[in-house]
Amino acid sequence: MSPALPSLTVEADRVHGELEALAALVEPDLPGWTRTALGPVDRQARELVRRWMRDAGLETHVDGAGNIFGRLRGTGSGRTLMVGSHTDTVVGGGRFDGIVGVVGALEAVRALREADVRLEHDLVVVDFFHEEPNEFGLSCVGSRAMVGELTQAHLELRDEQGRTLADALATVDVDPSALLAARHDFTGVDAFVELHIEQGPYLEEHGSQIGLVESITGISRFRALFSGQADHAGTAPMDRRRDAGCAAAGTVLAVERIAGEGMQSRGTSGQLTFTPAAVNVVTERAEFRGEFRGPEAEWLRSAQDALTSAAQDEGARRDVDVEVEWLPLQEPMPMSGGVVSVLGDVVDGLGLSSTRLFSGAEHDAALMARAVPTGMLFVPSRDGRSHCPEEWTDLPDVAAGVTALTHSLVALDRRDPPPDWDGAPG
Amino acid sequence: MSPALPSLTVEADRVHGELEALAALVEPDLPGWTRTALGPVDRQARELVRRWMRDAGLETHVDGAGNIFGRLRGTGSGRTLMVGSHTDTVVGGGRFDGIVGVVGALEAVRALREADVRLEHDLVVVDFFHEEPNEFGLSCVGSRAMVGELTQAHLELRDEQGRTLADALATVDVDPSALLAARHDFTGVDAFVELHIEQGPYLEEHGSQIGLVESITGISRFRALFSGQADHAGTAPMDRRRDAGCAAAGTVLAVERIAGEGMQSRGTSGQLTFTPAAVNVVTERAEFRGEFRGPEAEWLRSAQDALTSAAQDEGARRDVDVEVEWLPLQEPMPMSGGVVSVLGDVVDGLGLSSTRLFSGAEHDAALMARAVPTGMLFVPSRDGRSHCPEEWTDLPDVAAGVTALTHSLVALDRRDPPPDWDGAPG
Repeated sequence: MSPALPSLTVEADRVHGELEALAALVEPDLPGWTRTALGPVDRQARELVRRWMRDAGLETHVDGAGNIFGRLRGTGSGRTLMVGSHTDTVVGGGRFDGIVGVVGALEAVRALREADVRLEHDLVVVDFFHEEPNEFGLSCVGSRAMVGELTQAHLELRDEQGRTLADALATVDVDPSALLAARHDFTGVDAFVELHIEQGPYLEEHGSQIGLVESITGISRFRALFSGQADHAGTAPMDRRRDAGCAAAGTVLAVERIAGEGMQSRGTSGQLTFTPAAVNVVTERAEFRGEFRGPEAEWLRSAQDALTSAAQDEGARRDVDVEVEWLPLQEPMPMSGGVVSVLGDVVDGLGLSSTRLFSGAEHDAALMARAVPTGMLFVPSRDGRSHCPEEWTDLPDVAAGVTALTHSLVALDRRDPPPDWDGAPG
Repeated sequence: MSPALPSLTVEADRVHGELEALAALVEPDLPGWTRTALGPVDRQARELVRRWMRDAGLETHVDGAGNIFGRLRGTGSGRTLMVGSHTDTVVGGGRFDGIVGVVGALEAVRALREADVRLEHDLVVVDFFHEEPNEFGLSCVGSRAMVGELTQAHLELRDEQGRTLADALATVDVDPSALLAARHDFTGVDAFVELHIEQGPYLEEHGSQIGLVESITGISRFRALFSGQADHAGTAPMDRRRDAGCAAAGTVLAVERIAGEGMQSRGTSGQLTFTPAAVNVVTERAEFRGEFRGPEAEWLRSAQDALTSAAQDEGARRDVDVEVEWLPLQEPMPMSGGVVSVLGDVVDGLGLSSTRLFSGAEHDAALMARAVPTGMLFVPSRDGRSHCPEEWTDLPDVAAGVTALTHSLVALDRRDPPPDWDGAPG
């Protein structure tokens, strides 16, 4: 049963103002609201977030992985709750993905302080560095480092120009060795909660204000490289070509086909380049990066096998060499049943409509869940759109999410003894 | 019957030295021997060619289309023979395509002068500007302008960054209005001959030293644009996506399939880009440029219809909008029967083995043939490779080609009356 809810006021206008302020800090000449973690503007935005943390009365620091923390001292349990999300975006992305969870956490702090509600736990707001995938195929860089799952191999990933991730990080003043050493000590951390937009159509279609995430998708990303032979487009006979572009195109269709055969599964070929890029030269080299997602690790493994085999078939048919390189499989990650149960009670107590769901999007919460009992709250996305300029959540929906988040922090703080984190959802 | 051959000495070492000198003038940081007409190095190379023309005793000038001409005055017929090719290359291209025909024409002039063989005709050596296709999908810019087939519409073609061809030309000091006005007066020009590498495997496979080109391929180039919807790769269900990348990939395979069904036909998808290029975003926009080639105009028209229809099917299946834009069809171009007959007699008289063949590659000769009786001589390409760094022709094969070219110019000069240019091959 949920305890009586304290009187707390979330001010939607403040949330809106901070969403707008971050929406103004975007990379010029790029579409939508672009603020990539390895781009020129993200540091400025995160410096602004740090200032907001200080203004909200938090003690801030930045770890070696570029994660920004703001601590609100508790009354003395010596234990900690964490809350937050990220503020970087994809190229051509929107104004809500990640940002709602950081701004919402700040508003939660302000609402608690204004209502003079003191938590026993220290409350740590975090703006995770670099959640969105980069051109090296890696995502959740900051949270991955925090839970000790970032390795030297990740830093040696190369983009298409042959630059390493380590080199790219250095351009935004993140020291690669500090990043590897940024593993966080989670002793005494009782829970992490992330508020986020759904990025899919489920809540809107079900008329729910809040989504209670039960698990986060597994992800399997690959880089496929096709090496054929450059030839003159007018003279090389069709049956003697080694066209890497055609082999890659066939594999793009295989991704689509394989994902279409799974349950709740997704498959995407997000990047594809032909070299040389000349209209009268047979493509010598094609590279693409893609991924599969789904709630079942077993299906992801079978999709890997099916795609590798399809790529090899497409290559063999055209005498094109094929390399498919899989990044380590990110397993589907269940949220803590205990935390989800607390969040559900709070949402019910507030009279908000809710649905339990699966997240097809990855989140810092999936990494944090490896170290800390973790839960996620979703708010609806209009038409299910995300990672595009049309991404939208109505302000009242954002405010409802922030209200649920704020009360959830109070409920988690007051829960004594802490919930059975490993138990089944209540 | 061929007249008696004068004594003429082609010096392979000089040809080799000039091939090497041009091979040294390439764009840094690009693969192979890259010297694109719109790039930073081509002007320097063409300035060098102009110097060689002067050194060979030619009066030079450059027209408004950037074509470089070198004239050797004849003994007074008041008529003209033209000879030449181009010196620009594709990105990642080789050291022979085009270049052999320019350097070979210069060596022909030197051989004629050294043997004191005076032609009645003026002999005009030409280094055509910008033969290779550019990122605007246009090729044979200089020769196209000379025959009056370059239009304002060509200058308004745009690359993927939205820049016009006119703007790109201005960066290499070619004035677009001068280019449009560069139509050449061909009065009194009796023939044009181009020496070129085959760029295909036919001569090597048939053990022939010289190829006598009977016709040059028709070409039909297109730009296909697919517009879908950017969506989150994890949350957008497969059956609700509007994935422009998958529609484009299906169309790439259609190009391959359609070309494979024709006779001596080719189809190539040379450029493809996905936007945004992020691994976790469904592709909103895909653009590709491709082409069909073949000896039959009728087949090219049917391939256009088949490809447009395939692209529309691929789009419709995914609710993706499709635009296929065809550049004006370049009709297959027969060479002059009279000129080919003269070239064949000369090659036979020199004791060189030869084969008559069709050119799957386009050439400035196809444009020149619209205005002047035209013939082409091919020399073999190792393994049929071209438009790649491996492009290679042995020096003795190059020298045989230059010898055939030089004697052909003498034979064309001495032919009186001029051959029946429009007659059947003799």
